[in-house]
Amino acid sequence: MQRILSAELARHVGEQVTIAGWIHRRRMLKSVAFLILRDRSGFAQVVTTSAELEALSEETVVRVTGTVTANEVAPGGVELTGPTIEVLSDEVEALPVELFRPSLTVTLPTLLDHAPLTLRHPARRPLFDLRAAVIRGFRSTLDGLGFTEVHSPKIVGIATESGSNVFELDYFGRKAYLAQSPQLYKQTLVGVFERVYEIGQAFRAEPSDTARHLAEYVSLDAELGFIENQRDVMAVLRDVVAGMIAEAKAVPSVAGAGFDLPEVPAEIPILHFSEALKIAGASPDEEDLAPAHERAVGEWGLREHGSDFVYVEGYPTLKRAFYTHPEPGREPYSRAFDLIFRGIEMVSGSQRLHRYADYVSTLTERGAQLGPYESFLEVFKLGMPPHGGFAIGLERFVAQLTGIANIREVTYFPRDLHRVTP
Amino acid sequence: MQRILSAELARHVGEQVTIAGWIHRRRMLKSVAFLILRDRSGFAQVVTTSAELEALSEETVVRVTGTVTANEVAPGGVELTGPTIEVLSDEVEALPVELFRPSLTVTLPTLLDHAPLTLRHPARRPLFDLRAAVIRGFRSTLDGLGFTEVHSPKIVGIATESGSNVFELDYFGRKAYLAQSPQLYKQTLVGVFERVYEIGQAFRAEPSDTARHLAEYVSLDAELGFIENQRDVMAVLRDVVAGMIAEAKAVPSVAGAGFDLPEVPAEIPILHFSEALKIAGASPDEEDLAPAHERAVGEWGLREHGSDFVYVEGYPTLKRAFYTHPEPGREPYSRAFDLIFRGIEMVSGSQRLHRYADYVSTLTERGAQLGPYESFLEVFKLGMPPHGGFAIGLERFVAQLTGIANIREVTYFPRDLHRVTP
Repeated sequence: MQRILSAELARHVGEQVTIAGWIHRRRMLKSVAFLILRDRSGFAQVVTTSAELEALSEETVVRVTGTVTANEVAPGGVELTGPTIEVLSDEVEALPVELFRPSLTVTLPTLLDHAPLTLRHPARRPLFDLRAAVIRGFRSTLDGLGFTEVHSPKIVGIATESGSNVFELDYFGRKAYLAQSPQLYKQTLVGVFERVYEIGQAFRAEPSDTARHLAEYVSLDAELGFIENQRDVMAVLRDVVAGMIAEAKAVPSVAGAGFDLPEVPAEIPILHFSEALKIAGASPDEEDLAPAHERAVGEWGLREHGSDFVYVEGYPTLKRAFYTHPEPGREPYSRAFDLIFRGIEMVSGSQRLHRYADYVSTLTERGAQLGPYESFLEVFKLGMPPHGGFAIGLERFVAQLTGIANIREVTYFPRDLHRVTP
Repeated sequence: MQRILSAELARHVGEQVTIAGWIHRRRMLKSVAFLILRDRSGFAQVVTTSAELEALSEETVVRVTGTVTANEVAPGGVELTGPTIEVLSDEVEALPVELFRPSLTVTLPTLLDHAPLTLRHPARRPLFDLRAAVIRGFRSTLDGLGFTEVHSPKIVGIATESGSNVFELDYFGRKAYLAQSPQLYKQTLVGVFERVYEIGQAFRAEPSDTARHLAEYVSLDAELGFIENQRDVMAVLRDVVAGMIAEAKAVPSVAGAGFDLPEVPAEIPILHFSEALKIAGASPDEEDLAPAHERAVGEWGLREHGSDFVYVEGYPTLKRAFYTHPEPGREPYSRAFDLIFRGIEMVSGSQRLHRYADYVSTLTERGAQLGPYESFLEVFKLGMPPHGGFAIGLERFVAQLTGIANIREVTYFPRDLHRVTP
């Protein structure tokens, strides 16, 4: 018999149906026993006997055929009665973590060591449904704006962005590196498609062991040409974030999870970096926003504009990546921006330099060797329009939206200083 | 003035507009000169003077403001007259490849060495538009079938699938490896979501220097649980391939490129491996299909069913990966299949083993050490449903659909034995 999902049961009252999934929980009472079956759509209650359930165990995969029977006190108003239960998997022995408890009260190392099991806990599902939804929203928004999806190589011959924190590789007997970002490739591809995005892994050999660092993460990158300045990039980013959050809100499990998902205003309030310092009561000589300053900016946005989001633009050029476009005639400021969400930086972006000579002078001023960049910089001799872009770290974005403190909790199999399995 | 795209010009006859893009070509006649401007939507003809154009060069980025004037002989029936031309990029000096010629008659090394430039050639655009479209079709089909998009790590602690052809990495002082596929992760995640897909890089340190091998490629992976056998996987793959091709056909540049894109029949004809050998006139003792056999199978599909696609199922277990499910009671055959497109293998898949003991006995029979697999195999003690899946190599898929002989031509920045730049 064709399997149906537990969420479809209510439409089949009185019928004989087959469902299949994991034994989420067994409840053995004196005269009756309940099997709670979990499938990708939710849960189903199966009425059976203790004798039948005793031989089974939680997480065993079963197929159950029975009659759909209305019962007001059953979850979803229906249950399966008169069941035939068939085991589809190996039988499951003692588990290191009990999934049937309402919340997973385990330490982070246990959570991660047993990821194949702990990822199954129903409380974690909305996090990963949200994760998939925001990727969908990222894509559909950019597809609608004329962007082309691209893929740039993750194995690169030269360590460009920052010489140190890069993973080194034996590439057929030569040295190669794992890409820290698709930055220079996406700029190159603006020269081809004008507007590009990429969803792909980025690798950072940072020895930082914090709640916000991963050695491997998914970067949602976008880059667009023919801009006037960073404001054009910020407008696209606003639409992208709005599209990501709208897609998340449309997922039932996410809507039901009680996350405090924000509204994205049509116009996100913008502060110049120098104004942000004033609002934060910081010295005008500060070269970057400290966490306390970002919090003050966040409070300002909420107080003055009722917005969870604030753009800060104009960060001093020297504190940003070498490809950042300065604000002409307004040293030391640049055309870089951050999107601050509830007082914490969420996304960074900028207008980039698009002239060869500007790259040469910037790299030289910063004391960098031109050598490693030379082949990339050639593209700026080939006719590059003014352009800019942004990168969203997927795991950080999901953690911030859902209020999860450690990004490892929204990563399937995180990689960090200490962890390269499972 | 707000920029419009060249494709929008015809809607603005008589108006003053601004367009922007690359100087694709200059045509200087005695009394008049034409600037052909290229943007992401196509081409626009600008009527100007030789004096104005002499100072410019191909691939320079310009912004042009002028009047849209109907002209039957102009491309698209309109041209821009009375233009003001403003240069937005650095001026472009002599180029190593001329993009204005109808086709790029350069060697493959030149094509790839100068990828930032050669990718701009208009003849290549449909290939990469198709590439982006088939990814879109892959996703939307699987989203519609209840699959969840996931990301598995590309840095792995153990070299599982085949010990040799794997890239080794210095991971914070330890040895790690680049993932050859997300195979065991996607199986693990079937235990969480039942149906998952992943779009991500896969890495093979194969020293093969052929037209079909890359050291890094994009793998479109899908895996689903609660199947009866491989036929359920084949049905999903049929819908996925149909969705990918439909999405490609809907793109104007692809439709206009003259690719011979196939129809995907509602039911793809299926041959058992043993029948395929007969049709190919091969010995029944053959353990795999040679290229000539696949061609014969392709001819059979076209002749008997009018189909460009044929499924072959039942490949001998020992010729397939260790996780392949054998066909019970029908040794030496398995529940593996290939999708043959016009006589060449396009996609591989199978039902997988889902019981711990089966993995142990298979690996042992094959003389493999259990050690590297142990942490992965633990998942089969946690309750795994019968499951299967497939992987589509994006670049091979695009090359096959478009009839391109070398997959490097449909890869932005290919990586192979000899090439790790640009």
